[in-house]
Amino acid sequence: MKRVAIGIDIGGTNTAIGVVDIEGNVLYERKPQMATPQKLENPHMTQAVSDAIMSKYVTDLTIEIKAAIEMVKQINPEIEVMGIGIGAPNANYYSGTIEKPANLPFVGVVNFASMIQNNFPEIKYVKLTNDANAAALGEMIYGGGKGMKNFAMMTIGTGLGSGLIVNGDLVYGADGFAGECGHVTVVPGGRICGCGGRGHLEAYCSATGIKRTVYELLAKYNDPESPLYKIPMSEMTSKIVFDAAEKGDPIAKEVFEITGEILGRTLADTVHYLSPEAIFLFGGAAAAGDYIFKPTKASMERYLMPVFRNKVKILPSELKESSAAILGASALIWKEIEKNK
Amino acid sequence: MKRVAIGIDIGGTNTAIGVVDIEGNVLYERKPQMATPQKLENPHMTQAVSDAIMSKYVTDLTIEIKAAIEMVKQINPEIEVMGIGIGAPNANYYSGTIEKPANLPFVGVVNFASMIQNNFPEIKYVKLTNDANAAALGEMIYGGGKGMKNFAMMTIGTGLGSGLIVNGDLVYGADGFAGECGHVTVVPGGRICGCGGRGHLEAYCSATGIKRTVYELLAKYNDPESPLYKIPMSEMTSKIVFDAAEKGDPIAKEVFEITGEILGRTLADTVHYLSPEAIFLFGGAAAAGDYIFKPTKASMERYLMPVFRNKVKILPSELKESSAAILGASALIWKEIEKNK
Repeated sequence: MKRVAIGIDIGGTNTAIGVVDIEGNVLYERKPQMATPQKLENPHMTQAVSDAIMSKYVTDLTIEIKAAIEMVKQINPEIEVMGIGIGAPNANYYSGTIEKPANLPFVGVVNFASMIQNNFPEIKYVKLTNDANAAALGEMIYGGGKGMKNFAMMTIGTGLGSGLIVNGDLVYGADGFAGECGHVTVVPGGRICGCGGRGHLEAYCSATGIKRTVYELLAKYNDPESPLYKIPMSEMTSKIVFDAAEKGDPIAKEVFEITGEILGRTLADTVHYLSPEAIFLFGGAAAAGDYIFKPTKASMERYLMPVFRNKVKILPSELKESSAAILGASALIWKEIEKNK
Repeated sequence: MKRVAIGIDIGGTNTAIGVVDIEGNVLYERKPQMATPQKLENPHMTQAVSDAIMSKYVTDLTIEIKAAIEMVKQINPEIEVMGIGIGAPNANYYSGTIEKPANLPFVGVVNFASMIQNNFPEIKYVKLTNDANAAALGEMIYGGGKGMKNFAMMTIGTGLGSGLIVNGDLVYGADGFAGECGHVTVVPGGRICGCGGRGHLEAYCSATGIKRTVYELLAKYNDPESPLYKIPMSEMTSKIVFDAAEKGDPIAKEVFEITGEILGRTLADTVHYLSPEAIFLFGGAAAAGDYIFKPTKASMERYLMPVFRNKVKILPSELKESSAAILGASALIWKEIEKNK
């Protein structure tokens, strides 16, 4: 028998579905991804409408999961499905619920894990958590965090998510929602964050944060020589800033310096809290390589108490970006099996 | 047989020694406390001098521990000593070492736990950790944290220490030194901290921080009506500020407002990291009651993401201040027994 885990990642646009073995080999991945139900234009969604959309989504997802299992069985009839791991926004590991997700057309608290579990009574584990927590577990089970008992994972995309590993397990906290480092205050009274708060890490150290810093610096220097000068905010990406930095643009370089300064200072705080062995950076912004890693590392060391200096590694995630979401979600299951040994 | 644990707290001035049962009853406490060896005036302490001082200290401490056990045996001959728990500055739980303590006359890394263990081969556990970590364990074993799996403890005295409980255990991190919340940056580029850093929590939210805020506000308002106006910084205490606030002094009240604002913002960050069930405040500054708890709670709620609001309690520690150090240190042993069950 070959043991496998199903990994599902519910994004705002698409739902990724895959089948993964304990070594992190993706045996099957649905392509193209399944569409996630979209929010209705009518802002006054009722419970009944939400329930109907959810019911259809769970039915569709169930069919897709069954199809995925069949696909893998065609290659290896001897597979045993150990569980279904799900990464989703506002997912609560303890209760298996998705709670008031901002970008999904569901109101209130949805008992998502048990709805899926009901359709797969033969599968032992159906577990869910948010995507950054799942990524941290993926790093621990398949990636650079293998063998580490204490590390942090920062997923830097449009926003900034985090997953914290302490004493070999994910930190879920009292309510299941721990690990929201994107929303710690790094500049008191600073930029408005997507969550409504001010000066949060995510407003500075994310693709969006990088973009905002670009225009702050363009406003400061008003330099028509910068290749960034002609690009509207609606079209700006981290990749464009990276390319400008590669061409020597001082504004683009300063953008990364500022981003790294703030990220490094915050990671120093993370170390003061948790003293991890390493901090992994994952996602698009982390792809800027030395432009982001160097100033981040330098800043972190500068802000650390002496006892913590030159101890904590800042590393790129070893999860392949394209399959990271599926890997992370499936890792939930291997972790669950380990816990229940 | 009545099971007991020895609790020892090594402070910069005195060493507290006591014997505690599993309910947190202090069966014996050495009074007056034993003197801790003091730093020599000669700043060029050699290893040999450090070793000699340490050797004498361990000998003296061993005698005191034996005496303490005898004292308790006189009342109840049936006691069984389960272990010796030690709270000390720069203590490493994993290695049992005290590493480069700033306020003790020891250089380098001292294998403190094994030196004590050698003198008590019949006692199973000799464990040490820093005083704030010990306090958090004390709160969990004997105090308000009983039954909680996730909480944080902030000990607010001359400095600010912290102990973090995650998944029912203390967070030690990769190197044994985790939980240094006093040194997270709360005001980038702000006040110089005792550790040499800038803008750290401890520089604002501690007895020393409160004192500094007093003089910042006295400088701002230059108000001769304030009862604080005539007191030099060398004589200012949190108690004096508290008394002034009680008499209605607006500067004293604002001091607590500012302290609570910064502490609450930082505790919101703590929640974003760890989502604890409660945060306990311990120590002299916490004794200011509503003056500190009210603005801290209000500020924390203001800075929390909606998902965390109105969930996390800020509570006064239930450990009696006079015996908290001994209780905390002894709690290390009960926790160790639980872990090894």
